[in-house]
Amino acid sequence: MNRRVRKFLVMNGPNLNMLGVREPGIYGVQTLDDINRDIERLATELGVAVDFYQSNSEGQLIDRLQAAIKDCDGVILNAGAYTHYSIALRDAIASVPLPVIEVHLSNIHARESFRSTSVIAPVVAGQIAGLGAIGYELALRALCVR
Amino acid sequence: MNRRVRKFLVMNGPNLNMLGVREPGIYGVQTLDDINRDIERLATELGVAVDFYQSNSEGQLIDRLQAAIKDCDGVILNAGAYTHYSIALRDAIASVPLPVIEVHLSNIHARESFRSTSVIAPVVAGQIAGLGAIGYELALRALCVR
Amino acid sequence: MNRRVRKFLVMNGPNLNMLGVREPGIYGVQTLDDINRDIERLATELGVAVDFYQSNSEGQLIDRLQAAIKDCDGVILNAGAYTHYSIALRDAIASVPLPVIEVHLSNIHARESFRSTSVIAPVVAGQIAGLGAIGYELALRALCVR
Amino acid sequence: MNRRVRKFLVMNGPNLNMLGVREPGIYGVQTLDDINRDIERLATELGVAVDFYQSNSEGQLIDRLQAAIKDCDGVILNAGAYTHYSIALRDAIASVPLPVIEVHLSNIHARESFRSTSVIAPVVAGQIAGLGAIGYELALRALCVR
Amino acid sequence: MNRRVRKFLVMNGPNLNMLGVREPGIYGVQTLDDINRDIERLATELGVAVDFYQSNSEGQLIDRLQAAIKDCDGVILNAGAYTHYSIALRDAIASVPLPVIEVHLSNIHARESFRSTSVIAPVVAGQIAGLGAIGYELALRALCVR
Amino acid sequence: MNRRVRKFLVMNGPNLNMLGVREPGIYGVQTLDDINRDIERLATELGVAVDFYQSNSEGQLIDRLQAAIKDCDGVILNAGAYTHYSIALRDAIASVPLPVIEVHLSNIHARESFRSTSVIAPVVAGQIAGLGAIGYELALRALCVR
Amino acid sequence: MNRRVRKFLVMNGPNLNMLGVREPGIYGVQTLDDINRDIERLATELGVAVDFYQSNSEGQLIDRLQAAIKDCDGVILNAGAYTHYSIALRDAIASVPLPVIEVHLSNIHARESFRSTSVIAPVVAGQIAGLGAIGYELALRALCVR
Amino acid sequence: MNRRVRKFLVMNGPNLNMLGVREPGIYGVQTLDDINRDIERLATELGVAVDFYQSNSEGQLIDRLQAAIKDCDGVILNAGAYTHYSIALRDAIASVPLPVIEVHLSNIHARESFRSTSVIAPVVAGQIAGLGAIGYELALRALCVR
Amino acid sequence: MNRRVRKFLVMNGPNLNMLGVREPGIYGVQTLDDINRDIERLATELGVAVDFYQSNSEGQLIDRLQAAIKDCDGVILNAGAYTHYSIALRDAIASVPLPVIEVHLSNIHARESFRSTSVIAPVVAGQIAGLGAIGYELALRALCVR
Amino acid sequence: MNRRVRKFLVMNGPNLNMLGVREPGIYGVQTLDDINRDIERLATELGVAVDFYQSNSEGQLIDRLQAAIKDCDGVILNAGAYTHYSIALRDAIASVPLPVIEVHLSNIHARESFRSTSVIAPVVAGQIAGLGAIGYELALRALCVR
Amino acid sequence: MNRRVRKFLVMNGPNLNMLGVREPGIYGVQTLDDINRDIERLATELGVAVDFYQSNSEGQLIDRLQAAIKDCDGVILNAGAYTHYSIALRDAIASVPLPVIEVHLSNIHARESFRSTSVIAPVVAGQIAGLGAIGYELALRALCVR
Amino acid sequence: MNRRVRKFLVMNGPNLNMLGVREPGIYGVQTLDDINRDIERLATELGVAVDFYQSNSEGQLIDRLQAAIKDCDGVILNAGAYTHYSIALRDAIASVPLPVIEVHLSNIHARESFRSTSVIAPVVAGQIAGLGAIGYELALRALCVR
Repeated sequence: MNRRVRKFLVMNGPNLNMLGVREPGIYGVQTLDDINRDIERLATELGVAVDFYQSNSEGQLIDRLQAAIKDCDGVILNAGAYTHYSIALRDAIASVPLPVIEVHLSNIHARESFRSTSVIAPVVAGQIAGLGAIGYELALRALCVR
Repeated sequence: MNRRVRKFLVMNGPNLNMLGVREPGIYGVQTLDDINRDIERLATELGVAVDFYQSNSEGQLIDRLQAAIKDCDGVILNAGAYTHYSIALRDAIASVPLPVIEVHLSNIHARESFRSTSVIAPVVAGQIAGLGAIGYELALRALCVR
Repeated sequence: MNRRVRKFLVMNGPNLNMLGVREPGIYGVQTLDDINRDIERLATELGVAVDFYQSNSEGQLIDRLQAAIKDCDGVILNAGAYTHYSIALRDAIASVPLPVIEVHLSNIHARESFRSTSVIAPVVAGQIAGLGAIGYELALRALCVR
Repeated sequence: MNRRVRKFLVMNGPNLNMLGVREPGIYGVQTLDDINRDIERLATELGVAVDFYQSNSEGQLIDRLQAAIKDCDGVILNAGAYTHYSIALRDAIASVPLPVIEVHLSNIHARESFRSTSVIAPVVAGQIAGLGAIGYELALRALCVR
Repeated sequence: MNRRVRKFLVMNGPNLNMLGVREPGIYGVQTLDDINRDIERLATELGVAVDFYQSNSEGQLIDRLQAAIKDCDGVILNAGAYTHYSIALRDAIASVPLPVIEVHLSNIHARESFRSTSVIAPVVAGQIAGLGAIGYELALRALCVR
Repeated sequence: MNRRVRKFLVMNGPNLNMLGVREPGIYGVQTLDDINRDIERLATELGVAVDFYQSNSEGQLIDRLQAAIKDCDGVILNAGAYTHYSIALRDAIASVPLPVIEVHLSNIHARESFRSTSVIAPVVAGQIAGLGAIGYELALRALCVR
Repeated sequence: MNRRVRKFLVMNGPNLNMLGVREPGIYGVQTLDDINRDIERLATELGVAVDFYQSNSEGQLIDRLQAAIKDCDGVILNAGAYTHYSIALRDAIASVPLPVIEVHLSNIHARESFRSTSVIAPVVAGQIAGLGAIGYELALRALCVR
Repeated sequence: MNRRVRKFLVMNGPNLNMLGVREPGIYGVQTLDDINRDIERLATELGVAVDFYQSNSEGQLIDRLQAAIKDCDGVILNAGAYTHYSIALRDAIASVPLPVIEVHLSNIHARESFRSTSVIAPVVAGQIAGLGAIGYELALRALCVR
Repeated sequence: MNRRVRKFLVMNGPNLNMLGVREPGIYGVQTLDDINRDIERLATELGVAVDFYQSNSEGQLIDRLQAAIKDCDGVILNAGAYTHYSIALRDAIASVPLPVIEVHLSNIHARESFRSTSVIAPVVAGQIAGLGAIGYELALRALCVR
Repeated sequence: MNRRVRKFLVMNGPNLNMLGVREPGIYGVQTLDDINRDIERLATELGVAVDFYQSNSEGQLIDRLQAAIKDCDGVILNAGAYTHYSIALRDAIASVPLPVIEVHLSNIHARESFRSTSVIAPVVAGQIAGLGAIGYELALRALCVR
Repeated sequence: MNRRVRKFLVMNGPNLNMLGVREPGIYGVQTLDDINRDIERLATELGVAVDFYQSNSEGQLIDRLQAAIKDCDGVILNAGAYTHYSIALRDAIASVPLPVIEVHLSNIHARESFRSTSVIAPVVAGQIAGLGAIGYELALRALCVR
Repeated sequence: MNRRVRKFLVMNGPNLNMLGVREPGIYGVQTLDDINRDIERLATELGVAVDFYQSNSEGQLIDRLQAAIKDCDGVILNAGAYTHYSIALRDAIASVPLPVIEVHLSNIHARESFRSTSVIAPVVAGQIAGLGAIGYELALRALCVR
């Protein structure tokens, strides 16, 4: 009997669809599609599948995360600004029996003080921040070795 | 002339669709459908109608609450995590001329400290917390005697 | 062998003996005796006994609560102002192996900000607030179904 | 070559669709349609176009704001309750290369203390508050002279 | 028909029975009896009656204050340490339809910082502090001219 | 040898010249001249002299207070809004070797929370608040018995 | 009978006499005289009179504001740094029965955090901030339509 | 001439009469009587007398402490929950010219954060916490060597 | 061509005219004139001119500081109590293109906690505190070597 | 087989080598050597061994504490100022499987407010404070009876 | 000419030498040597060199970090408890022109609240937390791709 | 008998050995050796001796400060980052009977907010900040005139 290939959800929150457009001094010139292509390439190399999702809506992110129970083995989540106040997203993470790794492109601790608070941090498996787009790839590696 | 049967909206917020799945140690093993069935049974007993709505989206919860002006006589609301920060939901409650009773399954004061703050509490008619699913039924009784 | 009828203690704290006198705009015109009569009526209907106690003294409330271990199956407690600072009462609640339900007549969250803090909330079984005298009756129902 | 007429987006957030209904003591008796008609009249006078959008959903407001990059020259935004906590909306404002003017009908500093905090204020071009529906018109004038 | 002589209650809280003994550097060498004698003398001069009460117990102070409704026209209250945290006493003051003047012997603002907070201050008619035993007499004069 | 008659300075700060005009619901209908006339009458009765000064300027109030060293035996000070933040005035009070009694017409503890803080309170001889214009007279009596 | 032309006071606080000199990166190169000339031009257009006043002194600003009761129909006030702590100015605004509109040239919310607090905001009719010198003109328009 | 044997008061506050019953995981299985017997045994060994008192009432604890002036040479005080807020008890301790040693059975710093604050700590001679019932004995030894 | 001698303004704020009179335990017995004479002597030695100014008025201090642009090369400022809250003075310092050195006679960090905050500190060139009158002389030396 | 004599480490942190020199008003005139001699004497009496260590270096204190695993049965620790902020020392205490008793010579709650916080308190077995050098001896007794 | 192999410093702070010993429930059973061996293996695979350093001393960690300027191309730093308060270490990181990646074995946001604050976070290149020993390896990969 | 030449210790804390290397935009291009040479030159001019010490270790700085009792007459201390949290260093300063002057090269109040707090400030003789390396020389002059 062959077990299916493991699949990981790469989920991006509000305004990350603007990457490459928005404040390139902070976020770099890569678009989200560029980043996802790199992640896909690494996934292939590691022999796992990846699924991508982006939404500006808190409710839709929760919906997708709940659905991941059925089709995913772990989640890489850049919750964008929702990181700082969405207790609803936090509860959703706590309610799904999947490892979730929190990723931030920029060093959230070197910006406005409110960005230092992550309400989801206490319920994720780990965080990777400040390392740019490579952070998603490290998160994927971390999920693969679990 | 016969007056129509009074109807109450039972509205549940984010992640409450995961009841019976999510952290049963805190929320019990009943699903939201189980709970709603019990509420429906009591409604019949009390001679009133009930309508059910659940959404993970803050905007949709507000939309439904605004619509309740036209077809409901009161609202039982478990706003889930939005309880703690959705001032938009609070404003919606304040804007509808209906009694709204806030319900929480668990004792929100015995958990993380941020769960002790309810931004909607100052504008609801009353709160019932910590009594499990029976809380919805007590809320229904309270609405019926108003 | 016949088990004795279950008995619940209805305990009211400081200034609740002034109900019907004090600030009727907030607390209504019913006296505490009026309220207790209604609770007694419901108790009879539910086949349980109730015992009433009121004191303005923190120490006496603790004494009575400790004594309830011997003769009661649960407590309905409106601790009045002690709600907001009596850690001694909180410890007493935690030390008695009985379910205690916290009741407030008014919506404590819609008044002065210090009334939003309940130091006893983390150790009670549940809270009912803002629903007026009916809150005691809902608490009694909740204790009966436990 | 003729340059196209400048267009401005007038965007209203949660519960502003209830204007004229909700708490008229605070917000007045004009409906949102009444206000928009007045804005349209002034726009015609000033030789510019205006587009209107209202939503109760944080995500949809962000979606619309991002889309404004393509078809608008500036934004007049009454974010309602999201003013006070939507960092996601704040990031969206920061990510669009358009002037955004924050408008509030009531004097947000003369109400509940949490309404004094605007998380979007640091990234908008300016604020106009407390002047009622005329505030939108002043904002339109301000955008026209930029 | 002759109206009865007006009577005022002079009520002292915890540890004020130790006056003249306790920390004379702060409170002076007069005993509480000495002070009361002076107050009585002034009352006679002003043609009013005074009644004295001291207790270390929060509950007893509340009991006495509630009873004052029946036999007094106003209250002079030095609540001692209860000034700083007894919300129960505050509620009692708010519930009696009598003017209550708060008196402190020492300047509570020139001592430990927690003594600057008076939880009863918002519900009393006025405060007199830092003027020593003369403060009681000034309070009596103030009650007489109301 | 005959000692000169004792003289006390009655000093009023910003906006107290508007008494009788400004917010009569809070401050009453008496003008500052009315009040001063009453104080003068009592001074005559007590055999002391009084001098009156009002200014909206922090610097002028300090100048006058410093000058009082030469011609006064004590000061009755209603510092108005400067009460809450003028550390300069506080330092001036501390630097003059005269008893200063702080007076407030209204109960500053029953209004906006920032009015509960008096930066001058720790350096005055005593405070009288909430008793209306009679407060000045009580302060005068207190100065006379020192 | 002909009614006199309406007159509005344009009042600027500390350091605004340095406009065009001080930190032009924040405040622009226009001097206060330049700005006042523009306001005067608009006043003429709108058929109203304007009076100008600038002072670095808190007391003088209060004096002028109190005097405005006699000769003005409204006030446009840029209180400069006094915005952030002058409760005396706040009380003066509350005491005059005239609409006062608070104007700030820069976006006070995008600068040092202490500039986000306006102690006068709760008592003014409205605020306009961040729109540069045009803010004064918008304020004038707002006063004219009241 | 023989000097009387020194006597020390061992005073326990609210809920300590429940020792051995209440939360044995935190407080152990010994009852208060067991503990007192051990203290008595040590007292005999050290040649001093001990007196025991327990009350749930703040006022009664203060009454007993004041009375100790006449018949005791020092006090061992476990004030239970009053430790955290009874400023009245603190004042009583400060007013008696006796050394008072504060004892806690459990490590109050390893429990809920509010238990870390002792309002009586600044006025006692010393504290012993976290060492169980042996703490009372160490306190007795400390009093004996003073 | 001969350049004019450099001139520095020595500016003292509220209550510093009371030096030698006020609280000598903190500020020493030298009067302000004594100190200024010593500064003048050092200025002569260093070949520079000094100008002296003292005022109790915040507005006058700002006026003088603004005027210094025309006739001074630097400022030595002991702002007294205005140090702790005068944002207006801070803005004035920021608006003048001159080095300003903040001086305090006493160690402001060893006194009341509110004296530890200097709102002008972020915009001055440097601070010298706690060294007594010699601090002014060190500041003069520092300005000379710039 | 004979079990080795139990040994306890008495560890003193920064500046405790200055005892008898530094602020004798607070810490007494005994030197650390005097104190250690007394502890040694008691150890002999109790039939246990003691080892002494003092260092001003946080790292060396941690090194010594870790080494104690191999040769000690418990630790008496006066961490001096590190008590208030050395989380590293706290982690070291938590990482060694030995009972550690925290000792302070003076009553840390009666001094500067920052001395009331002990970051090591939550992980030690117990605390003894304010009893002077006798505190070490009581700690030794407590370790011996464990 | 051949460039030397890149070398990275792996630096561990206080108590990390206790790994495998200390609280394995939180930190796992691997010793620091085990972890370092795994890092070395990966370094070899990636063609880079690694150097290891551990100290319990804040000063020695700073010394080593400063020395790294001469012989390293980047630093992987698990500062242990110093993460939360060592501003000295933070300054050292800011002073060396090398990328430093902050690593934590456990999820510091899911433990005591003080562990959520990292004073070094604002000056490091990035953070990796909660992923166990694999975090060091991910950090090494991140440094290699820079 | 000839008295020995007075000697002062110039002590620099963590990272100050990196001066001239680290963030020259903030600290200038002079190395610590350059600065010390200038101080030495001034010392010679003033006829006093100076001794220099720098360490990154908190413990070593305390050791050296304690040793200064024997061979120095005063201390010039730039404690670097330890300024902000080393209570151990503060206690060491308090324990040595020598005047200590705190020096900072940069204006610590114009940088990150945590740099505004100096825990050593309350116990030093004075502070000099923001004046660059000249600050050390001013401190030396101040010590010489004491």
